[in-house]
Amino acid sequence: MSQEHISSAFDRDLEAVQALVVKMGGMVEQQILDAAEALESRDEELAQRVRAQDKAIDALEEQINEEAARIIALRAPVSRDLRLTLSVIKIAASLERAGDYAKNIAKRTQILMDVPAVDGSSKAIRRMAQAVEGMLKDVLDAYIQRDPQLARDVRDRDVEVDQMYNALFREFLTYMMEDPRNITGCMHLHFIAKNIERMGDHATSIAEQVIYLVTGETPDEERPKQSSVIPMDTTEK
Amino acid sequence: MSQEHISSAFDRDLEAVQALVVKMGGMVEQQILDAAEALESRDEELAQRVRAQDKAIDALEEQINEEAARIIALRAPVSRDLRLTLSVIKIAASLERAGDYAKNIAKRTQILMDVPAVDGSSKAIRRMAQAVEGMLKDVLDAYIQRDPQLARDVRDRDVEVDQMYNALFREFLTYMMEDPRNITGCMHLHFIAKNIERMGDHATSIAEQVIYLVTGETPDEERPKQSSVIPMDTTEK
Repeated sequence: MSQEHISSAFDRDLEAVQALVVKMGGMVEQQILDAAEALESRDEELAQRVRAQDKAIDALEEQINEEAARIIALRAPVSRDLRLTLSVIKIAASLERAGDYAKNIAKRTQILMDVPAVDGSSKAIRRMAQAVEGMLKDVLDAYIQRDPQLARDVRDRDVEVDQMYNALFREFLTYMMEDPRNITGCMHLHFIAKNIERMGDHATSIAEQVIYLVTGETPDEERPKQSSVIPMDTTEK
Repeated sequence: MSQEHISSAFDRDLEAVQALVVKMGGMVEQQILDAAEALESRDEELAQRVRAQDKAIDALEEQINEEAARIIALRAPVSRDLRLTLSVIKIAASLERAGDYAKNIAKRTQILMDVPAVDGSSKAIRRMAQAVEGMLKDVLDAYIQRDPQLARDVRDRDVEVDQMYNALFREFLTYMMEDPRNITGCMHLHFIAKNIERMGDHATSIAEQVIYLVTGETPDEERPKQSSVIPMDTTEK
């Protein structure tokens, strides 16, 4: 068996497990959208479905881990091939965490059924969830296409999600000060917003891995656009 | 070679690579403390050392990954043994991210040398850094001792780090509104605080992995103390 033959067998194995990662990513994206939809429309049944669906995501991560371990045991990849194989495990772990946050949102949505609604917030949360879902979608495309530019774009967009989170945080503080009956609702909504912000962090982590895999540089060593690192410096005198 | 023999060889291999993870954790802890110290005392030389030291942490992660891959290739662990082996890779990845944030803090500290100091904030940031360093230390103890209770304790403490971050965020907004000359400094300090908050998230991720490894439950399936999940609900009527 020639070296090339071994190598293409490795590539086939890797592609198969990457396809599972993409499948897992699609499931997590749907969970994020469904969780936000359930929150906005106060749909208890959909929230319940999101909670149940998380088990399938966990099972898929388990399967991805086993497949990746099988590749390592069978092909003993080194250097770049090893990094590619391990990236599958790390990305699946990030997706699994993001899936957990979606489940947690669904859980809080069910609790929120019993407390007064907080005006407008669930719409803003849904916009934030859609932004994060878009980041996840694009970062998985960047991963499959080995596209560092798209990965950088995703990383830059995380700043916007942070800003949405910070704006919501201030909004919740105002609502709570205005009327103590809003406190329970706002506390849950704050954790929901925080969970979405963390999903954005995971998308960013995946983006940074893609950049490292393709360019061999950790993103911090690059020279990022000023605007991406210090977004509000433009407001400076 | 008996099954027991194989198994204890696996244990020895795993312990060796776990020792590397603990070493890596100690290095990252020191980086967090040094970065915060450099920020508070405006010590450019220390900031430079933190930036240089990050390469050693990255190299250690590489070594851990290679060792873990070697164990998988050699021992072909399955189910719990595989999870234990993969946990080494995932924890090292979290530590590497935390190390990157410390490096980024050191980088911003050097930029901050050239802008007016923002009163008191670097002390508050240092307290936050110390809290996160303590979380990292304890979560690695929890990992080595397979102690889910200590891991839960670490996870609960992340809420405090979030609160410190939120308090700082509000403080920075006030400073920026008070005097536009504070904007550049506050923007960098805000990113520094955010980086520390993200280190706390990584410590929490490690804690959740420890809980899963030891109990087989993902933390969300547990029944957490009310106070840990909804910390401010006690302020409710």
